[in-house]
Amino acid sequence: MLNDSIAQLPTPCLVVDRKKLGHNIERMSARARSLGVTLRPHMKTTKSVDVARLVFEGGIGPITVSTLKEAEYFSGHGFTDIHYAVGISPDKLERAFALSRAGVNLILTLDDPEVATAVVSAAAIHGAGALRVAIEIDTDGHRAGLVPDDERVVSIARTLTRNNIRFHGLMTHAGESYNVHDRTGLEAHAELERSAMATCASRLRAEGFRDIVVSVGSTPTLTAARHLDGVDEVRAGVYMFQDLFQSNLSVCSLPDLALTVLTTVIGRRPDLGFLIVDAGGLAMSKDRGTASQHTDYGYGLVCDASGAPLPQRLIVGNVMQEHGLISLPAADFGRFPLGTKLRILPNHACMTAAAHDHYHVIDTESGSMAVWPRCNGW
Amino acid sequence: MLNDSIAQLPTPCLVVDRKKLGHNIERMSARARSLGVTLRPHMKTTKSVDVARLVFEGGIGPITVSTLKEAEYFSGHGFTDIHYAVGISPDKLERAFALSRAGVNLILTLDDPEVATAVVSAAAIHGAGALRVAIEIDTDGHRAGLVPDDERVVSIARTLTRNNIRFHGLMTHAGESYNVHDRTGLEAHAELERSAMATCASRLRAEGFRDIVVSVGSTPTLTAARHLDGVDEVRAGVYMFQDLFQSNLSVCSLPDLALTVLTTVIGRRPDLGFLIVDAGGLAMSKDRGTASQHTDYGYGLVCDASGAPLPQRLIVGNVMQEHGLISLPAADFGRFPLGTKLRILPNHACMTAAAHDHYHVIDTESGSMAVWPRCNGW
Repeated sequence: MLNDSIAQLPTPCLVVDRKKLGHNIERMSARARSLGVTLRPHMKTTKSVDVARLVFEGGIGPITVSTLKEAEYFSGHGFTDIHYAVGISPDKLERAFALSRAGVNLILTLDDPEVATAVVSAAAIHGAGALRVAIEIDTDGHRAGLVPDDERVVSIARTLTRNNIRFHGLMTHAGESYNVHDRTGLEAHAELERSAMATCASRLRAEGFRDIVVSVGSTPTLTAARHLDGVDEVRAGVYMFQDLFQSNLSVCSLPDLALTVLTTVIGRRPDLGFLIVDAGGLAMSKDRGTASQHTDYGYGLVCDASGAPLPQRLIVGNVMQEHGLISLPAADFGRFPLGTKLRILPNHACMTAAAHDHYHVIDTESGSMAVWPRCNGW
Repeated sequence: MLNDSIAQLPTPCLVVDRKKLGHNIERMSARARSLGVTLRPHMKTTKSVDVARLVFEGGIGPITVSTLKEAEYFSGHGFTDIHYAVGISPDKLERAFALSRAGVNLILTLDDPEVATAVVSAAAIHGAGALRVAIEIDTDGHRAGLVPDDERVVSIARTLTRNNIRFHGLMTHAGESYNVHDRTGLEAHAELERSAMATCASRLRAEGFRDIVVSVGSTPTLTAARHLDGVDEVRAGVYMFQDLFQSNLSVCSLPDLALTVLTTVIGRRPDLGFLIVDAGGLAMSKDRGTASQHTDYGYGLVCDASGAPLPQRLIVGNVMQEHGLISLPAADFGRFPLGTKLRILPNHACMTAAAHDHYHVIDTESGSMAVWPRCNGW
């Protein structure tokens, strides 16, 4: 029945397994509770208000976003406690303050004294309202932030508080945890992230700052952390769907992966050894994250229409804009007539989902299907 | 003035140079005329009705599309002679026939006798109307199609004509031309594509088929072909914007590239040797096509706000979802304060444009700027 409904969907499209999504969400929520921290889910992966409601069991809670457009979208649906976790640049302040004026409890992120000064200037014009500012800390040399002992951490905090801008606290993202190869490595990165942040917060407290929220985050480190003493809040996003990259990191197992791309066989080349499907580079993304991991899944792992990986372990070996090529032994072509429906597990759920503007969410128990929109762009 | 207007745009976003776009369009139109073939531009790159109007100097002409959604979008704007150049699967026929019933002069593509039979069955239900069918030929072992001497080419043509389905002709895409390294290689691929198609068409004529349209296409082969005897129509799309990949193929030069991603410097890490910009993997795509070419541009080549490549030849060396990292010598950081606007030339225009739902089109002569929407999804 459900497979009949799936077969009617126009391809390529996103299909989400509601049960797996729910399980992933519950597991991470329970983990945050057991670690004694607040989970502020990062909505950059799913960009869906329906998924956000699922995280909070129908309620509204604190969230993280990666674009101001997401902040506008989620606040339009009642999620008003929002951490915009990408470094703000001065040109984006007007749009951020507009959200703040509209009642959104927005937390900005910065790591530069000049930007702090720009926030002060903007607040003088627009009024700071409930706007808060977090300082980004770099705990692993991955991307943005000030290193924990940089004196600018204190000077920025002073600039903010002296000018009556609410200093929210410290945030970091342990992006280097994506480059490890086993659980031991993940645990080490989680501890590095935690301890560096706890130390940095202690330094600020010694300087007289109070009520500093310490926020860390990434699906791998939150999954692997042994404890999070000194941490108040965690941000993670891809855990809701999980993907092949996370599975390779041992963060989850293949049956946990909730997001697939439904596709149709549109060509068969036994002479060249591949099937052609209508999930190409646009539908899958060109993310090749698993190429550097222990198992390389090409552009995705092929499943049957029910979402179970095929026993032959087929992968999408190459993609063009609207074509995906699945390598296949000549003897197996009989099993995949033209029109066959397949589902592909993606390397990187955040990238794959972004090419689509909605999800087909299937409930394998009730047999029902729903369409959930998502918010793309900037 | 124009740079001031550009500086006001929310980043990341697409910026198109109207003059370069016009020049690219005129050059390819002139080339098709000089080769004595009809240009049926592929709209899969720009997905913009405004660009299509530019190709036809304000008029309406025959176009190529890569999705049925594009066919619906362009036909809704008066472009009713449309070749859907991706192999049709039976489940998509209902949607295709709906277009045909609505007056669209749609050409479908197929390479499988079973699909031809499905088209016949669907026509019996829906009425074939003006619907035409092209047979896809594989001239270089790249992807889809029947090899030119496959007997199914004739049998499919017979199945169609016997059942009063209009047999449009033969089409191919010389995708392997993307893997060559010089002009000589491109010319060889263009000749391979042309001669294989001309021979295949002769065979069909010998079997009694008349009025066979022979359609070939790709920006590289159309640029390099010495002659196109036996070819009626050419399809090409990326030439309108061009990109770093095409430039590496010697199809164009860097100053021809019309599409850029406007971005803002949101972080500076002289200690780690990179700038952080807000054009990440979503805004640029994760296409790494130039990695296998003579010049690897990472995820894009960095230009100043006016669109001129920086003298230091900076590239986006790494991307995360919303962060791009530009490697930079420590001595150069002073030139790029936080908030600096840059424009990035993409590896692959089709992939990069697809993450955005509109273009900012700038006219460097008049100083004007326009917003042109594009059609994404399926």
